[in-house]
Amino acid sequence: IEGTKDSELLELLEEVHYADVAEIIDDLNLEEATYIIKLLDSEKTSDILTELNEDVREKILENLSAKEIAEEIDELDTDDAADIISELPDERRQEVISELEDREHAKEIVELLRYDENSAGGLMAKELVWVNENWNVMTCVREMRKQAEEVTRVHSIYVVDDDDILKGRLSLKDLLTTSTRTPIKEIYIPKVDYVNVHDKAEDVAKVMSKYDLEAIPVVDEMQRLVGRITIDDIVDVIREEAEKDYQLAAGITKDVEADDSIWQLTRARLPWLFLGLVGGIGAAAIMEGFEEMISKYAILFFFTPLIAAMAGNVGVQSSAIIVQGLANDDIRGSINNRLWKEMLLAFLNGLVLAIILFFVVWIWKENPIEALAISASLIVVIVVAGIIGTFIPLFLNKRGIDPAIATGPFITTSNDIFGILIYFLIAKLIIGI
Amino acid sequence: IEGTKDSELLELLEEVHYADVAEIIDDLNLEEATYIIKLLDSEKTSDILTELNEDVREKILENLSAKEIAEEIDELDTDDAADIISELPDERRQEVISELEDREHAKEIVELLRYDENSAGGLMAKELVWVNENWNVMTCVREMRKQAEEVTRVHSIYVVDDDDILKGRLSLKDLLTTSTRTPIKEIYIPKVDYVNVHDKAEDVAKVMSKYDLEAIPVVDEMQRLVGRITIDDIVDVIREEAEKDYQLAAGITKDVEADDSIWQLTRARLPWLFLGLVGGIGAAAIMEGFEEMISKYAILFFFTPLIAAMAGNVGVQSSAIIVQGLANDDIRGSINNRLWKEMLLAFLNGLVLAIILFFVVWIWKENPIEALAISASLIVVIVVAGIIGTFIPLFLNKRGIDPAIATGPFITTSNDIFGILIYFLIAKLIIGI
Repeated sequence: IEGTKDSELLELLEEVHYADVAEIIDDLNLEEATYIIKLLDSEKTSDILTELNEDVREKILENLSAKEIAEEIDELDTDDAADIISELPDERRQEVISELEDREHAKEIVELLRYDENSAGGLMAKELVWVNENWNVMTCVREMRKQAEEVTRVHSIYVVDDDDILKGRLSLKDLLTTSTRTPIKEIYIPKVDYVNVHDKAEDVAKVMSKYDLEAIPVVDEMQRLVGRITIDDIVDVIREEAEKDYQLAAGITKDVEADDSIWQLTRARLPWLFLGLVGGIGAAAIMEGFEEMISKYAILFFFTPLIAAMAGNVGVQSSAIIVQGLANDDIRGSINNRLWKEMLLAFLNGLVLAIILFFVVWIWKENPIEALAISASLIVVIVVAGIIGTFIPLFLNKRGIDPAIATGPFITTSNDIFGILIYFLIAKLIIGI
Repeated sequence: IEGTKDSELLELLEEVHYADVAEIIDDLNLEEATYIIKLLDSEKTSDILTELNEDVREKILENLSAKEIAEEIDELDTDDAADIISELPDERRQEVISELEDREHAKEIVELLRYDENSAGGLMAKELVWVNENWNVMTCVREMRKQAEEVTRVHSIYVVDDDDILKGRLSLKDLLTTSTRTPIKEIYIPKVDYVNVHDKAEDVAKVMSKYDLEAIPVVDEMQRLVGRITIDDIVDVIREEAEKDYQLAAGITKDVEADDSIWQLTRARLPWLFLGLVGGIGAAAIMEGFEEMISKYAILFFFTPLIAAMAGNVGVQSSAIIVQGLANDDIRGSINNRLWKEMLLAFLNGLVLAIILFFVVWIWKENPIEALAISASLIVVIVVAGIIGTFIPLFLNKRGIDPAIATGPFITTSNDIFGILIYFLIAKLIIGI
């Protein structure tokens, strides 16, 4: 790419969608990337910047002056602008804000920076179309035309009173089908879903997807309209939420990607592996306690990995179902019922598996007592693992802790230890030592 | 609830949003649920039906006559209508379709039923606003008003030629800001993203979220406009996709929920547990191969659960990162680089953990050779586990198999076996038997 002339490159890139240019830039080295950003005009680069990988964006912004960044920011909607500015180091942030040309825009961005990025306030944009209930349709359409020029996509038109308090909405459809002389007060829909600036992003996502909303107005503590959130931001929230749960289930703490640095990846994974190490040492200590059995019943020791694996798998299955149910708000009924059901389920699964295992061991070792000891304890281990896997996320959730941390290594490790302990205790009982 | 008079109940429910009524109905018994559905008018109940839990809906529909179902369907948009009809048994389906009053609507639903539910055709609705490029704005607005009455939400206005071939779009914003006398040909935007009816739902989701689209037109093989997909349907696709991957990682095959029957839950889980059982028996066979060591070096056997757990955890971590990267299309560079990076990462993690383990075992058993044997093999096991965890999903993906099946029990089980084998081989080498 870098061989061609500026003008040809420019022409080529003008044709491409900004999201695609962002993908290309993600793959280039820093020098080339900065070169392209400086080559294109800020209308396009501002959009490209929002689509870039966070690390790449950080590095490119370091190579731009505060004035250049300010030019990009001036082109962006307030929500994207606030997101990018919040990634800058503190003093750069001040510099960039002071360089912004549009002071109204700057004020709005500063307002958005106040909110937590995982709250409705952190997601919302200030660009929206609103009308006063006391206007007539004439004034209204004139005002809306003015506003619409600043708003990328018009979803709903919100209606406020003289104190900016949200009263309702005007749908675009009504606008297309109503005559232009009706006063606003008579045609607006007084019912409107809204969220509070301090609501959690997750909850906003739940409300919007439950009611199939494409945009939702945001109000402050006094019910004044302060912004709106659009569904495309919510899609990102849902995606991130799902990814976070998935990574936690796999034993990865921080939000990392395959392309992150080795140091970031290590920090995200090592703590969970350390937990597994501690669990393994615990399991070794338990097995040492049954050392006297090892010479006569070595076979019991051969099956510990099987017992540990089954305990871990069942625990993860149970907890995943519960964590997912909690995330979707469809866990109903009492904890007791849930535990009973899980016990029954685990028992059925355990019974099937134990019968298979019994015959395998019996044929292999020609010793039905050993086979019985191993398979009978398998059932108990599976039932206990199912109960632990169900109980822990429910318990954490009641305590207000994210139950997703209970899936993955946490459940696996605790179930390994419990499983092995139960296994040896029951086997000892049956073999009768 | 069932004590109150019909009229009171009706008044109460009229006030509530249909998504909330659906939640209430999900919790009622079948008789009460059917009663409420019959009580409310079909404008509201049709929306409630789309929001119900699938199992509940199926049972309620069984209690309604074909005519009653057809009344509900008449109220729905074509995409929701087709979804509900596709859940009916074959002959009921025909009956219901023949009872539909609006024949135009019926024809469109039948068309939608032809498409796979996981394709763009299966997601799209026939309700959209379109204009012919040869119209002027006058005709256009008149036509649009007619069409807009049938469309719940107007997103974009699509422009077609005389052969229904998609030419571009008119934005609502332009509509608000342009004078009414301009001919369509001059004002439409000739660039428009679209998908083909046969594109996979997942791919549609990727395109829409990459370009932040709120609706996308669907064309057939001849580029004729046949429908449109809105972002709210895509939100469901993204959510389901994430849930499927999460469940696979936890070893749950089918799409099940916490409230499903024991039989459904068992079928979803048992196959994976059986895989674990086979793996455990394999591990036992490997350990038996090293039986001669058991009397002198029992401690090696005590640490097998630790080795197996670490191998499993590292494998799941590596595969989760890869699976997620593949899902988001941000795995770049060659497989070789990826494997090298993962090996380095695993080696670093392994080294840290092995050093800790070395000192623990040394202090505990006062035997540095045993401690060395165990911790040195831990490093190798972790590195191998990382490689397997990276390689398998990449390999499956190249073969066109969903890499998500490689996470969870599949990786855990294979890593358990490899881990234990490597562990005993290396330990034997170091201790020097």
